[in-house]
Amino acid sequence: MNTTKKVAIGVDVGGTNTAIGVVDKEGNVMVKDNIATPSHGDIDRYISDLATAIKELINSVKLLNPDIEILGIGVGAPNGNYYNGTIEYAPNLSFRGVVHFVKLMRNHFSEMEALALTNDANAAAIGEMIYGGAKGMKNFVMYTLGTGVGSGVVVNGDLVYGHDGFAGECGHTTLVPGGRLCGCTALGHLEAYCSAPGMKRTAFELLAHYNATDSLLANKSFNELDSKMIYEAAVAGDKIALEVFEKTGRWLGQGLADTVHHLSPEAIFLFGGPTAAGDYIFKPTKESMEQHLLPIFKNKIKILPSQLKSGDAAIVGASALVWKELEK
Amino acid sequence: MNTTKKVAIGVDVGGTNTAIGVVDKEGNVMVKDNIATPSHGDIDRYISDLATAIKELINSVKLLNPDIEILGIGVGAPNGNYYNGTIEYAPNLSFRGVVHFVKLMRNHFSEMEALALTNDANAAAIGEMIYGGAKGMKNFVMYTLGTGVGSGVVVNGDLVYGHDGFAGECGHTTLVPGGRLCGCTALGHLEAYCSAPGMKRTAFELLAHYNATDSLLANKSFNELDSKMIYEAAVAGDKIALEVFEKTGRWLGQGLADTVHHLSPEAIFLFGGPTAAGDYIFKPTKESMEQHLLPIFKNKIKILPSQLKSGDAAIVGASALVWKELEK
Repeated sequence: MNTTKKVAIGVDVGGTNTAIGVVDKEGNVMVKDNIATPSHGDIDRYISDLATAIKELINSVKLLNPDIEILGIGVGAPNGNYYNGTIEYAPNLSFRGVVHFVKLMRNHFSEMEALALTNDANAAAIGEMIYGGAKGMKNFVMYTLGTGVGSGVVVNGDLVYGHDGFAGECGHTTLVPGGRLCGCTALGHLEAYCSAPGMKRTAFELLAHYNATDSLLANKSFNELDSKMIYEAAVAGDKIALEVFEKTGRWLGQGLADTVHHLSPEAIFLFGGPTAAGDYIFKPTKESMEQHLLPIFKNKIKILPSQLKSGDAAIVGASALVWKELEK
Repeated sequence: MNTTKKVAIGVDVGGTNTAIGVVDKEGNVMVKDNIATPSHGDIDRYISDLATAIKELINSVKLLNPDIEILGIGVGAPNGNYYNGTIEYAPNLSFRGVVHFVKLMRNHFSEMEALALTNDANAAAIGEMIYGGAKGMKNFVMYTLGTGVGSGVVVNGDLVYGHDGFAGECGHTTLVPGGRLCGCTALGHLEAYCSAPGMKRTAFELLAHYNATDSLLANKSFNELDSKMIYEAAVAGDKIALEVFEKTGRWLGQGLADTVHHLSPEAIFLFGGPTAAGDYIFKPTKESMEQHLLPIFKNKIKILPSQLKSGDAAIVGASALVWKELEK
């Protein structure tokens, strides 16, 4: 007897590309595809192209397994608003203003049981909850460290969207009053210190401070240097690179402690490029967080690497929205 | 025909006194009483005394209104843990270790429908939700500014307790890395800047900085000066006092912005002595918060004075727990 295999579709809307995948309940990507996120800003054409690509992907996966059942589509997008199903004023997308993404998609997929959208960091948090290390956890927080720093907050098993759907922007808490200029124009935000570009900025500050002409990082321009090079230099014992991780961890730990004081989570998950450095980043982060915590929280809160596979994490996270919707 | 009037009992456990009140659904304290919170540390004797005092108060209110129905007892206590009904390692109470407060009270009030405990700031948040300015709000945060700074976080209409029952300690987020010593021994926490003693510390720093011998605050010792004196000096136009409010507001606004980035609340309520200064504190707080916010949050989040009457707020807040329990 054949049993139906239930799957979800994940869509990750990025500035250049939109990735689509069919994901099973265990978080495995069965098939995937990519279309360009257009620069023309014509949302109707883009949605129509996206719908076509999704339908083709569904057909291709049904050829492999005719008994498949598609339960829904989950979308992760910058400035995605779960309540309204909209993408609102996303600086890196060509679509202006407020895009009613879910409503437009519904025209093409009227039969889908679940069709939901949230921002990428929230999608990662739900992915961790459905497929990853947060299975069974009711209270945890996800930090995504990349070009920016995003976050998703889970309380009592549900994602916190707040009053207007935009909760979970922990990357924009203030670490250093009057400190570094953040991409959002405010000063001293966590993102300006703990993102991949933040690490590069720290490296350049340290090179300048120590006049470190002998550092492995001293021959790279500001536009050449990236966090992977800093990691490789740290592994080779470069003092500047090692101090970059030390300082990044100290800043991040301060921010995580603020999160703990708000929410008292069971764990905080870290996701993204800089976390590949393992103990170089986790150790100082943990030490710093503990230093900033009230005694009642000390040695209680786990800092864990995300268990989502980095390559497919965005698709997988977006698809997790579908299972979460169907729980309701 | 007489209709039954339903009421709740609120108990506020303080370091010196325990206040008890009978509170109606509108938040009016009908009768109240006080017993000493003993220094002997004998919890059984204290609970027995407290139970007697509550029973006498119930009898006295029933004399006035025989048709009264007591729905339950809500307790607000420092380091109160809602999940366990315990008071855990409260530094200002004589009871050592973990006190199973609700369990002990249950021995004396087996018939009570609701019997619950939480910490004082959480009780204030629930009070605001049941009786005060947060009626009908689903997502808000309460900051209580006093000797310390407490907070209560409400998400989707429920208080956030977190994994272990201790969520909502926003007074211990870090404002200034490596800054002032906090009562909890960490450095730079919000409480060290925005509590009433924090304002006094700011005043003394400013007196020292400006060598302000002509300030109205220059004739008070460190142990004499309090936040009310600073307010009165500000009203009289004293420059140091005015700058204290300016700086306190700037710090507080930074902290509130961190809270907004975590939770995206509809409003943040401020409660406690320093808030009596009105615009002196609310204006710089609002300005600073806005400066620190992401564009998507700007000019959206209200900062409001608590509508709980300051004298009875602790009893009223604790009693609100009962109505909240009965909603479940």
